[in-house]
Amino acid sequence: MFISFEGPEGSGKTTQARRLAETLTTEGHEVILVYEPGGTSIGKAIRGLLLSPEEAPNERTEALLFAAARAQLVEEVIRPSLSRGAIVISDRFSDSTIAYQVGGRGLPREMVERLTAFATAGIKPDLTFLLDVETTTGFARKRQTTPDRMERADLDFHERVRNAYLQLAKSEPERIVRLDATRPAPELAQQILELVRAKLSREPAGT
Amino acid sequence: MFISFEGPEGSGKTTQARRLAETLTTEGHEVILVYEPGGTSIGKAIRGLLLSPEEAPNERTEALLFAAARAQLVEEVIRPSLSRGAIVISDRFSDSTIAYQVGGRGLPREMVERLTAFATAGIKPDLTFLLDVETTTGFARKRQTTPDRMERADLDFHERVRNAYLQLAKSEPERIVRLDATRPAPELAQQILELVRAKLSREPAGT
Repeated sequence: MFISFEGPEGSGKTTQARRLAETLTTEGHEVILVYEPGGTSIGKAIRGLLLSPEEAPNERTEALLFAAARAQLVEEVIRPSLSRGAIVISDRFSDSTIAYQVGGRGLPREMVERLTAFATAGIKPDLTFLLDVETTTGFARKRQTTPDRMERADLDFHERVRNAYLQLAKSEPERIVRLDATRPAPELAQQILELVRAKLSREPAGT
Repeated sequence: MFISFEGPEGSGKTTQARRLAETLTTEGHEVILVYEPGGTSIGKAIRGLLLSPEEAPNERTEALLFAAARAQLVEEVIRPSLSRGAIVISDRFSDSTIAYQVGGRGLPREMVERLTAFATAGIKPDLTFLLDVETTTGFARKRQTTPDRMERADLDFHERVRNAYLQLAKSEPERIVRLDATRPAPELAQQILELVRAKLSREPAGT
């Protein structure tokens, strides 16, 4: 089973991804927690390039770098982990690309979807949690730390990202569960865990 | 005018690209000499990742990284230079992607062509010199220096790359000039210069 967490900066998705990984591990599952971009040696280097204030990749370069990191993560980590029956939890995956590169940056959707299909070789999450939060709230939470290049992007941008996420959730209600990220973290964690358990009980191991 | 130099490792294309740039500069042209992957800050970092013996990007990651470097080079350097009437000379460009990623690595041609179109935003060389050399000869020339990751790839791979180059030259005879790279460098330089001059005289400045 492949689970992804999505949402804007400051939505708490990283916390929830970690909590879920810990709980499932405690229950005896093999859990692989990955994050995007990153999760592999070359992915970490690419992440460094994307976040560096000294680099100014244009929109296409940025989309291609995210795709490159993902292609490596899929082949090196995600696919082999899923093959041996592990639960893979990813902090961001292909919905981020649609939300940020298409919604946020305005790149053509068809091309970005093709890029994503090429990078993932068709692998898609079975279940996605969208931690939705109003753009201003997310900003306020995150502002406690020094912003990197991506985080400095303007509010408008983040508003477009949010809208793209909400549209994705609407178009794939079976896969994407929208959650109100302003609710208390333990409460969210409980709801997420229940949804995952329900999904796990419906799908026999190894499928 | 946009000129690219193509060919396998050890074919002498870098030398010829530099010679042409020097001669045209001496004659009063503004010449921008770039190389792939590289030519921009982020491109150089990507080049470092691609050549590092410590990284093992898979075929898709590799193709996406080359495309990312090119997208930046096109927008940051090539397009603005061409717009103001400079002659751009590139040591490798999109034909390398077809030769190496499709011919060499066996990635699907249609997808790689789409990737290239996305990265270049449609920009293509007006004139391309393919410095063709039998695979074994090229290897012998290059073996004087320590091989990097790309160079270590096997002879079979380079044979497939060469065949892909030859097919490209056959399919676009108007743009791609195949030259026998074993001929003396000054003789090749003279032929290249004459072909460029002929092309320059046919195309009025600014087109």
